[in-house]
Amino acid sequence: MNAIASTTNHQVRLAQRPVGLPTRENWSFTTEPVAQPPESGVLVKTLSLSLDPAMRGWMNDAKSYIAPVGIGEVMRAGGIGKVVASRNPKFAVGDLVSAALGVQEYMTIPEDQFKRVSLFKIDSRLGTPGQWLNVLGMPGMTGYFGLLDIGEPKAGETVVVSGAAGAVGQTVGQLAKIKGCRVVGIAGGPAKCEWVVNELGFDACIDYKAGNVKAALKEHCPKGVDIYFDNVGGDILDDVLARLARGARIIICGAISQYNNTTPVQGPKNYLSLLVNRARMQGMVVFDYADRFPVAVAELAGYLREGRMKSREDVVQGLETFPEALNKLFKGENFGKLVLQVAAD
Amino acid sequence: MNAIASTTNHQVRLAQRPVGLPTRENWSFTTEPVAQPPESGVLVKTLSLSLDPAMRGWMNDAKSYIAPVGIGEVMRAGGIGKVVASRNPKFAVGDLVSAALGVQEYMTIPEDQFKRVSLFKIDSRLGTPGQWLNVLGMPGMTGYFGLLDIGEPKAGETVVVSGAAGAVGQTVGQLAKIKGCRVVGIAGGPAKCEWVVNELGFDACIDYKAGNVKAALKEHCPKGVDIYFDNVGGDILDDVLARLARGARIIICGAISQYNNTTPVQGPKNYLSLLVNRARMQGMVVFDYADRFPVAVAELAGYLREGRMKSREDVVQGLETFPEALNKLFKGENFGKLVLQVAAD
Repeated sequence: MNAIASTTNHQVRLAQRPVGLPTRENWSFTTEPVAQPPESGVLVKTLSLSLDPAMRGWMNDAKSYIAPVGIGEVMRAGGIGKVVASRNPKFAVGDLVSAALGVQEYMTIPEDQFKRVSLFKIDSRLGTPGQWLNVLGMPGMTGYFGLLDIGEPKAGETVVVSGAAGAVGQTVGQLAKIKGCRVVGIAGGPAKCEWVVNELGFDACIDYKAGNVKAALKEHCPKGVDIYFDNVGGDILDDVLARLARGARIIICGAISQYNNTTPVQGPKNYLSLLVNRARMQGMVVFDYADRFPVAVAELAGYLREGRMKSREDVVQGLETFPEALNKLFKGENFGKLVLQVAAD
Repeated sequence: MNAIASTTNHQVRLAQRPVGLPTRENWSFTTEPVAQPPESGVLVKTLSLSLDPAMRGWMNDAKSYIAPVGIGEVMRAGGIGKVVASRNPKFAVGDLVSAALGVQEYMTIPEDQFKRVSLFKIDSRLGTPGQWLNVLGMPGMTGYFGLLDIGEPKAGETVVVSGAAGAVGQTVGQLAKIKGCRVVGIAGGPAKCEWVVNELGFDACIDYKAGNVKAALKEHCPKGVDIYFDNVGGDILDDVLARLARGARIIICGAISQYNNTTPVQGPKNYLSLLVNRARMQGMVVFDYADRFPVAVAELAGYLREGRMKSREDVVQGLETFPEALNKLFKGENFGKLVLQVAAD
């Protein structure tokens, strides 16, 4: 047991279900006393939270791969924290941990909840806390298993990834390069595209904001697209479908262009390209691969250590900025993995 | 060499590319003298032609899995014919053969074209000429390899097939029953649905013309849909997507609801169900499996012989009725495999 600095836990809760882009009115800011851990439990202080496109889906009252966040509940979020009080021999005060901490400053976790919130100690020798939310965290795991297990890349194949400067896209593109593929990113704006090519080593990057993605795909994928890792959906998915190579694989990881629609989702009107090209489109949810995360972390940490892989985080400060910080994702304003820093240490 | 009955070959050629549903103006009716076979070639008299939804796609000037039929060319069609003259020792006058004969009464085939038109002798002990266009022909091969290779059915799983009373649907549903699956068909009208359940042994059949396919899927697929064999696309594809089981497989075989659109194809707006359910949607083209057709024919012919599988053909008479006969497919008027009988023998 240890004294903690604050006795007040600031929290962000879901107040209303949003229609379209979330607004500040959809959130409520609450406080409660910090609770000391029960026997065998721990108290974790939030350092950084992961802001992810999937969070928008959790705000809807719809059946999905995970239950929606209830009205009045603390918003779900993965994060990195520091153990500030422990009644469990496996965790010591000062340990850095990863867990679904929620958008709040402190989380008291009884032992019987360790598994539910995916609590584990992180090894700071393998990566920084930011990297543990990025390449070594859920985005990295998503990119790793989506690309390798669903995409099955072979050296020489052409891989296209949308959201290329985002968290998942960074990992996918760099990993595909390491596996010997030709890699073409799609991102918004020249700054992201330059970074993706010059810093991450992609073969090309298409600025979708410049228009005519279709012509750019033709230019940069002369033999067609063997693997498309889709984070965005919408028109770009249709453009890539029109450019598939025979036997192509599309990994459906997300569809950020559609999450704030107030009209129905835009279905891919070029889906019959799957037939013509004997191609497949397959969905994935990263949690299914949890028992293999350690293998992926070891491999990716190796690439980071060797300098073969880079990571970039876009860090926003302060719990109270959460509503606007989250919306950066949907406006395409984040450059790299979006992280909300709640406390410096 | 043999004398032949007629010296005139009546043909149906593509005169114009259709916009929407083909009309009689899109076709031209021509004649030319019947040509005797060159050295090592054969002359085949058309008995029956297979009318297939895919033919609509071949009429468009668009890149696909096969070149479009050119303006002025004899319309492509698979069929069963009789060898009426032969200069090749492998074929005798009177042999029944399968080949891409085209919509015409006679086809002269030089030896170097045997492979291109997929010429082979059919074994009438294995099935009738009608069955050789149906369960033992391209529709049967499509159903067999689509269901087994792409769908990978396991006993106890729920299989849904649209176009259930059509050529491909018949094979898919009956084969899925033989493999131990629960099978739900989707077809238009009570007569087709009754036949599919009472004669073919499907567990249920949903009449899409009666409306509310979504509710009917919920009723008949209480554990969700493990495999969907899609011949139709459109709203029905969306309804099934909304009902997928975890790990579902969708075989994209066709989209007959969309082939005569004058507006863009309707993309499946529920495609993100692939993500939620870790499901895949995969296209297929039957020609890819050509080297395994004999295996499939042997298995399916066995089921026909044992009475475990039935087949139904909807036979329309006369080459000159081709334009209207073909359109029966797009109006959902055919009941069973649609066949155009050109000559009785």
